[in-house]
Amino acid sequence: MILDGKLVVKGIREKLKKDVLGNKITLAIVVVGENSSSASYIKGVMKTSEKLGINIKLVKTDENVSTEEMIEKINELNIDDSVNGIMIQMPLPKTIDQVKVINSIDYLKDVDGLTDISMGKLVKNTGDGFLPCTPLAVLKTIEYYDIEIEGMDVVVIGRSNIVGKPIASILTNKGATVTVCHSKTKDLKEKTKNADMVIVAIGRKHFLTEDMVNEDAVVIDVGINVVDGKLYGDVDYDNLINKVKAITPVPGGIGTITNTLLLKNTVDSYLK
Amino acid sequence: MILDGKLVVKGIREKLKKDVLGNKITLAIVVVGENSSSASYIKGVMKTSEKLGINIKLVKTDENVSTEEMIEKINELNIDDSVNGIMIQMPLPKTIDQVKVINSIDYLKDVDGLTDISMGKLVKNTGDGFLPCTPLAVLKTIEYYDIEIEGMDVVVIGRSNIVGKPIASILTNKGATVTVCHSKTKDLKEKTKNADMVIVAIGRKHFLTEDMVNEDAVVIDVGINVVDGKLYGDVDYDNLINKVKAITPVPGGIGTITNTLLLKNTVDSYLK
Repeated sequence: MILDGKLVVKGIREKLKKDVLGNKITLAIVVVGENSSSASYIKGVMKTSEKLGINIKLVKTDENVSTEEMIEKINELNIDDSVNGIMIQMPLPKTIDQVKVINSIDYLKDVDGLTDISMGKLVKNTGDGFLPCTPLAVLKTIEYYDIEIEGMDVVVIGRSNIVGKPIASILTNKGATVTVCHSKTKDLKEKTKNADMVIVAIGRKHFLTEDMVNEDAVVIDVGINVVDGKLYGDVDYDNLINKVKAITPVPGGIGTITNTLLLKNTVDSYLK
Repeated sequence: MILDGKLVVKGIREKLKKDVLGNKITLAIVVVGENSSSASYIKGVMKTSEKLGINIKLVKTDENVSTEEMIEKINELNIDDSVNGIMIQMPLPKTIDQVKVINSIDYLKDVDGLTDISMGKLVKNTGDGFLPCTPLAVLKTIEYYDIEIEGMDVVVIGRSNIVGKPIASILTNKGATVTVCHSKTKDLKEKTKNADMVIVAIGRKHFLTEDMVNEDAVVIDVGINVVDGKLYGDVDYDNLINKVKAITPVPGGIGTITNTLLLKNTVDSYLK
């Protein structure tokens, strides 16, 4: 079975359109420098927001902006009642303290789920923070296809702060037994072969091969690798598709869902 | 081998005494109601602090204190430069919003590591937050006995916000491959039997039995179970001690170390 990101997105957007109807909801996107607002992710967010009827407030700053000036701008957005979510276009110039700037976002508007406090709330499962969009996309895909998470043995490959760690915590909180694997893991193949679900998020083209999974496995590919202008996942899709129980494609899988979830978080922020 | 908490403590205290010498370092302990300051954990902290030359500022509040009044007190301590660490005696009366009160502690003084922001920093491994004392006690024990964490297969039983989740994150960040098990986990025994290290933190007397571990395992017992006035761990110590490679006793293991680490965090806060 192919876990189709486009179908997952469709379901989320239909629900979102109803929530947005008649409401003025705004996502602020902070971009540094002239060219950064033309980046493809931003473009995708703007296109989706237009379809859904959500406003984008583009906050442009000069290339030479200081950390303090950035934080000042964020603080203005934090207290601006007309702004429901704040997103910062990454990466910031090296002259800026990126961690400090991100953590200045009020967690109630941190729709990208990137602040330390949002991470803490995610791990503790407090329910009042926003989940970062890529881990949330994995969760939404699993839920859309009615895959029972509780009791499942899940192997997550990759321990990044943006994907591996949060997805592991989310699934642990949902009752899965999660093993986080990474570059220091021994006998990786043995672990993935025994897993009911394998989630790969390391950024290496076709890292997960056919011999590493069992036939009942659900495989989630979070990888985005551009090689010679072509997009590849972390999973050797062509060779796994006929073996495993279910798999997400790249493109057309997890990456398809993320910008819609950024807007879903913004709508949820408004509704709160 | 017995992993002796008293030896671990001794090493930490010797170092601490040197750091404290000639400095005025203060831990504020907030207690609600008259009797709570006589609780055994507080007593232990006060005894240790006296030995080390660290001041305790006991902040007593009325039994009927409100959430807002508690937060006001915390805010006073947050801005008081003579206070290096803040600890709140738990549990708070049910009339108080415990989560809100805890999260009002400035993370720079959150020496108990209980705020959402401290948890986020722990998971992200930012290095500028404090680790909660029980997970930190596990780490210090492993390090004291020169057990190589990197590459180790670790099973953590228990997914609490205070122990299971943070210890899993800490060890993942140190390069271990960690599996978090809990009540929904299937084939637990198979998982623990294959693990290089098993950490148990669920609060059930002698839950981990001889048949669940292999002979090369390191076993860490975080359990504190009082049955008929006697203290028991989560591990069937008497039957494991002659089988496994290394094990922490209860009493005399992890629990012995925690209050010293609360004071270590306070000293580290001062030194920063």
